[in-house]
Amino acid sequence: MSEGSVTLKKLAEQFASLPGIGRKSAWRLAFHMLTLNKEQIEIFTNTLLDAHENIHKCSVCQNLTDLNVCEICSDQSRDHSIICVVEESRDIVVLEKSNSFNGLYHVLHGLISPLDGIGPDNLTIKHLLKRINGSKIKEVILATSPTIEGEATAMYISKLLKPMEIVVSRIAYGMPVGGELKYVDEITISKAIENRNKL
Amino acid sequence: MSEGSVTLKKLAEQFASLPGIGRKSAWRLAFHMLTLNKEQIEIFTNTLLDAHENIHKCSVCQNLTDLNVCEICSDQSRDHSIICVVEESRDIVVLEKSNSFNGLYHVLHGLISPLDGIGPDNLTIKHLLKRINGSKIKEVILATSPTIEGEATAMYISKLLKPMEIVVSRIAYGMPVGGELKYVDEITISKAIENRNKL
Repeated sequence: MSEGSVTLKKLAEQFASLPGIGRKSAWRLAFHMLTLNKEQIEIFTNTLLDAHENIHKCSVCQNLTDLNVCEICSDQSRDHSIICVVEESRDIVVLEKSNSFNGLYHVLHGLISPLDGIGPDNLTIKHLLKRINGSKIKEVILATSPTIEGEATAMYISKLLKPMEIVVSRIAYGMPVGGELKYVDEITISKAIENRNKL
Repeated sequence: MSEGSVTLKKLAEQFASLPGIGRKSAWRLAFHMLTLNKEQIEIFTNTLLDAHENIHKCSVCQNLTDLNVCEICSDQSRDHSIICVVEESRDIVVLEKSNSFNGLYHVLHGLISPLDGIGPDNLTIKHLLKRINGSKIKEVILATSPTIEGEATAMYISKLLKPMEIVVSRIAYGMPVGGELKYVDEITISKAIENRNKL
């Protein structure tokens, strides 16, 4: 069996190393790249190098940004009295798309996970506490995912925030909108029943 | 709604422009890239630039290669009396993985498709005829996909080859009709090679 062009194989391997890209997709992407012209390839590689060089954590909320203070933290039209705590930057992309929140964020860059050796000190929890201390923050929404690690992290932060005389809330559990009862797991259903709202 | 980091958005857009990468995957890949270190990013971009610069068509079979004559064409352990004609280079990757063929290849780089303005002259059919003329080629297997364009191209080439006193065969309909070669599993492909029919 011929392995084909070594350079091409290397390129396919690079793509295959990315998350969610299987062997066949990696080859398809490698071949696709050869159909682009020199300028398109340079735009692609330069965008990548540029992003890698210039994107860093916002000094306030720890979200990824090109600026010193990200555009959300410096936007005066947003509610600066409420912080939504999320696991990672891409959660902010989803929340912003939902148009359901107009306050500020705080990115933990992970969840407490003792099995993976990740403790509270590996997250940005100390930045959150420092940020809230002496500020006009009235509420913190803990929006980590409803997984074991997400729950544990929310509980941990909630205990630290309790003495600070601010409202600490947790995103609601329930049925995903558009989801069918028969396909939803039992724990979600029992949470949806438990948290039922009067009509 | 905040659009987030401009640089990051540009990077996600670059990924979204690739085939088979949706909006969500593009964002996931963009975030993933920021977790790599400088060296890993440089390996990625250099592999891409290197591939784009050095890969070209083999002067014999038109397959993509780093060499003047590709390693399949210059491999003396392969059967130089039989050519398998395929639509594009990635078809060779799949055929080689199936381990069902030990001859040479010829890459058409497309199929005859009048609706898309692609005629026989846009393909490498003339290179194929020139290559066969006066050579020791005994058989040509037409392994274009069993789609309308693939069939038409196979019929066209078959008519040109008939007067040349060589066996012209077509891969068997062991493949699902309408399927594309590059997406089919190895066993089906080796069956199709095994049951090829004389034309």
